[in-house]
Amino acid sequence: MDKKIYEYSDLIDRDLSQMGDTANEKQSLAEKIKPLLSDSSIVLAQTNPISGNIEYNALNAKKRIERAENIGAGVIVFPELYLIGAPVGDYILKFPVVVEECREWLENLAKSTKKTKCIIGFAEAENDKYYNSVAILANGKTEKIIRKSVLNNIAENNESRYFESCPADYENRTVSINGKKAVILIGDEEKILETVLKEQKPDYIINCTAKISRIGKEQFISNQFSKIAKKYSLPSVMVNQVGSSDCLSFDGASRVYDKNGNLTFRAKYFEEQFFIVNPFDSNGILNYLPKGMETKLSSTFSLDYTSDLERIYLTIVQSIRDYFKKTGFKRACLGLSGGLDSTVCAVLLADALGKENVVGISMPSKITSAESKNDAKELAENLGITFIEMPIKNMFDVTRENFDEIFSKIENWQEARYKQSYTNDNIQARARATILWGISNEFEKCLPIATSDKSEAYMGYATINGDMSGGYAPIGDVTKTKLFALADWLNNNRPQKNAIPQSVINKRPGAELAINPKTGKPLLAEEALMPYEFLDEIIWRVENLHQTINDMIGSQFIYEKENKISKEQKREWLEKFFRRMSSALYKWSIIPPFPVVDAHSINSAEYRQSIITSGINYTKTSFEQ
Amino acid sequence: MDKKIYEYSDLIDRDLSQMGDTANEKQSLAEKIKPLLSDSSIVLAQTNPISGNIEYNALNAKKRIERAENIGAGVIVFPELYLIGAPVGDYILKFPVVVEECREWLENLAKSTKKTKCIIGFAEAENDKYYNSVAILANGKTEKIIRKSVLNNIAENNESRYFESCPADYENRTVSINGKKAVILIGDEEKILETVLKEQKPDYIINCTAKISRIGKEQFISNQFSKIAKKYSLPSVMVNQVGSSDCLSFDGASRVYDKNGNLTFRAKYFEEQFFIVNPFDSNGILNYLPKGMETKLSSTFSLDYTSDLERIYLTIVQSIRDYFKKTGFKRACLGLSGGLDSTVCAVLLADALGKENVVGISMPSKITSAESKNDAKELAENLGITFIEMPIKNMFDVTRENFDEIFSKIENWQEARYKQSYTNDNIQARARATILWGISNEFEKCLPIATSDKSEAYMGYATINGDMSGGYAPIGDVTKTKLFALADWLNNNRPQKNAIPQSVINKRPGAELAINPKTGKPLLAEEALMPYEFLDEIIWRVENLHQTINDMIGSQFIYEKENKISKEQKREWLEKFFRRMSSALYKWSIIPPFPVVDAHSINSAEYRQSIITSGINYTKTSFEQ
Repeated sequence: MDKKIYEYSDLIDRDLSQMGDTANEKQSLAEKIKPLLSDSSIVLAQTNPISGNIEYNALNAKKRIERAENIGAGVIVFPELYLIGAPVGDYILKFPVVVEECREWLENLAKSTKKTKCIIGFAEAENDKYYNSVAILANGKTEKIIRKSVLNNIAENNESRYFESCPADYENRTVSINGKKAVILIGDEEKILETVLKEQKPDYIINCTAKISRIGKEQFISNQFSKIAKKYSLPSVMVNQVGSSDCLSFDGASRVYDKNGNLTFRAKYFEEQFFIVNPFDSNGILNYLPKGMETKLSSTFSLDYTSDLERIYLTIVQSIRDYFKKTGFKRACLGLSGGLDSTVCAVLLADALGKENVVGISMPSKITSAESKNDAKELAENLGITFIEMPIKNMFDVTRENFDEIFSKIENWQEARYKQSYTNDNIQARARATILWGISNEFEKCLPIATSDKSEAYMGYATINGDMSGGYAPIGDVTKTKLFALADWLNNNRPQKNAIPQSVINKRPGAELAINPKTGKPLLAEEALMPYEFLDEIIWRVENLHQTINDMIGSQFIYEKENKISKEQKREWLEKFFRRMSSALYKWSIIPPFPVVDAHSINSAEYRQSIITSGINYTKTSFEQ
Repeated sequence: MDKKIYEYSDLIDRDLSQMGDTANEKQSLAEKIKPLLSDSSIVLAQTNPISGNIEYNALNAKKRIERAENIGAGVIVFPELYLIGAPVGDYILKFPVVVEECREWLENLAKSTKKTKCIIGFAEAENDKYYNSVAILANGKTEKIIRKSVLNNIAENNESRYFESCPADYENRTVSINGKKAVILIGDEEKILETVLKEQKPDYIINCTAKISRIGKEQFISNQFSKIAKKYSLPSVMVNQVGSSDCLSFDGASRVYDKNGNLTFRAKYFEEQFFIVNPFDSNGILNYLPKGMETKLSSTFSLDYTSDLERIYLTIVQSIRDYFKKTGFKRACLGLSGGLDSTVCAVLLADALGKENVVGISMPSKITSAESKNDAKELAENLGITFIEMPIKNMFDVTRENFDEIFSKIENWQEARYKQSYTNDNIQARARATILWGISNEFEKCLPIATSDKSEAYMGYATINGDMSGGYAPIGDVTKTKLFALADWLNNNRPQKNAIPQSVINKRPGAELAINPKTGKPLLAEEALMPYEFLDEIIWRVENLHQTINDMIGSQFIYEKENKISKEQKREWLEKFFRRMSSALYKWSIIPPFPVVDAHSINSAEYRQSIITSGINYTKTSFEQ
């Protein structure tokens, strides 16, 4: 295949995203591409739909269909459920009008097709039932509709909640394109493939899919598709969705495997693309594979996250950008404490939204160190974001004064008054959040950002209506040790080097909300909790190995290799973990949406646990009555 | 059946809940009951487990098994999944140790059985798969285990997420009890019944279940069980769970239908009970059926909620009580504005937790009327809860001063500054929440209460980190017009009449956060939104009829019968509803847990919709390109 085609199709992509070309320019571009295509050329429309926004999705499809027609492609293929946008939600149950709109737009799109066939996923309604379907449009009409047979019920997909599974109609599964026969699969339908192939003898496979991006998924997908292509000796074409939806991300990377199972074409990751492939051409193009995409799910914990950081960065940046764009926001404000969490969030926000759309505020209290204030300011200057300093002393003092009066008036509860409480710590965190939400109330399209991280989420170490409050939480699925690695990575891999002051990375984290009476200095998080290296390994073991306290006591942690700790100390930390995790369940239920980057997360999109289960005894190691 | 048995079993219940009786007292009670039982007597252990707290559940089971043994009952039957507690959550996937603990406790319970058989639901693990199972324990051993075949996948149950469905082993489905043969069903397994009956010829049916309580469910359950009993001419015994789990409630009411389909025994609603029945005795006992339990799902909206209010009250009180008890809390604090929402919440909290455990705080701003302050105080005095008044003027002034400085410093956003903003309104709501969370930080086991209601939730008319913030939201699923009816009902049906000042019920609701420039008085909610009668009917139509704007324009609202409104006005309100609902999705995602009382709710336990779907065009009435 002539690689020049990609220079041209990149121009189409630029025009599609910016809509700058005139009709003439479009046509002349098409004329350049046309001679480079063969009968077997396919356009994979790797697109970023907005779930539920049918008009937006349809108009984007229309532009692409016209371009495919212009260049004389035999077929253009969109992802699974493209017209409604994956993942669907309960709105399709509550508002059937949205699914009806899907059908109306589908008919409109059908009318706009000419010679180029269009294969496009949508949600179909019939007799009060819904189907995950793909339509074949051509010559101004709907040629056929194929309904998904094998539904995907893993946590985030939950397809049986919405769709009926349709018995496989093997005869209906193929489409003829320029004299070749393609069999259409929707998502993971390998199960039905054998029978279809036996009955239909197709020339290749087209798979419309919308695969939620996950660590280890790339390997899984590669193996799966390669295996199928090889097993049946058929080229296999896969078109995938791109873009993020609250917490879940799709990474694109649409691709082709030849009949020997070799990868021959691969689209870009984390970008929309008008990607031209040929399933019978083994001389394709493989776009850049970001580091981390091929990371395998490890069976042991490691503090070396290097190989996975580019993937994490791209996932979070796409997620922030899409969350803001799809909800109609463009600006963000966040507190800059000079600590690691808010620092990394600021960098990610500046990259996702543009520095002009980010405001960072240092809101020191009397506990805040001069170093923290300087670090916050230096970071903001490096990034070029607006920086404001506003001490919260007067808000704290007034609140504290009111509290003294109120607390003393609750006479019948005095015996239940804590000797040591978090009251003062939390006044500070809440005053800060009040300021951020105030900014969001005062300026258009501005969201305050929650900066708490995954290690803190597990420990419930974030203040309700304080630092855990915000419209979005960029690093809610990133553990603290990984954040250190990410900060380093950002300093070395962004075009602007070392935006993050080295002192932020060097110091040990602390909320600077209270003084440690033992040291006379601000209490460090690890003094209140446990070493982050140890904590993050517990989280990893819980999420990936489902280990109990006993399992963990019996095996060595990485932290223990360099730090001698007693068995009692280890057990104390482990018990503290489970105790704190149990009481964090309420906080999990009100945590703002955050991009999932780990293999498992506690996000409500995928994790469900009632708060009243806080009494579960995870420390149970053996049965005693 | 001798009705005296119920006087005695009530004493057992009293002892089980308070644990006051000595061994001798227990034994002498048993001796009185023993002669009143027949071979066919069955104890239905209508119990309130805590999901995940196996030890708690097992110890409660043990006490009941011992009592059943003492009185010489042939069998004691526990609800579906009793040992693990319904609804299960993702903890069983993440922490298999909890399911292992289930098995260990099951063996322990088996050892404690003697002549009385015990039929008990639990979560069973085998080869990395889970089953929703029932064990038959007797003579110190596990006699057999039955696995559920027909899983329940409606939204809140979601059983396929956790359990494998087990092919029905018809031979294994029966248990012999004192010479009679009972067939065991788990939940809704009518599907397999026909074959079991044909092969096994049992004498009656025992159904272990855990049915989530819903409006209209009582009717549904009655019909279902009655029909089955009659169809197969077999007495049918059903034992149900009671108690609440965050948002979901179980209402108990275990029961027996005779072979003609007549209801012969019915246990209490919303209470644990050691309920003795005889499937072959048509002269049973029917405990009180609270009003509203038999409410049918209506196909038209009505503003007359009278018939449903007792059910709603009991559901909310049980939910508050269980949420606090199961999460280890006992005290609540809430803001008392003198408005309807906080007033009704205070009454419900006093009834659920006891007046000594509730603190109400009036936190007036300069907009708060004298009447509101008086109403708050009068209510607190009537209820006997602690009352404090604390103006928030100084917190407001200091915050506002800081805001002026900050806002002016964000120079590059000045063009994006709102001409009219909610900034001042929200400072007030957030200052109040800061005070409530401060109290919760200072006193042991104290939760602040979110007082916002369902009408406001749909309109996003509640302040983030303000009145929508709290540990629990008692009236989150109650619409405003229903709240007025509930307030009236409380005044007439609680032992203490008229606790709620009539002026609270008479005045039109307003947040008292801003002045309406047109009237010079505090802005009423209905001026900002639309008449509540109209709003609540939209909500009802959306949830129950899935209507579009067009559907609603074309049909008359109750509000329109007495108030002439123009078609333009009606469309404006409808469009406002959908516009505001779309931007409320984020708020829905962080709403505190609340008890579900309607047929449908937006609680995250049952409703799932990504925030990025806020762009859905619900106003679309017909297709235009």
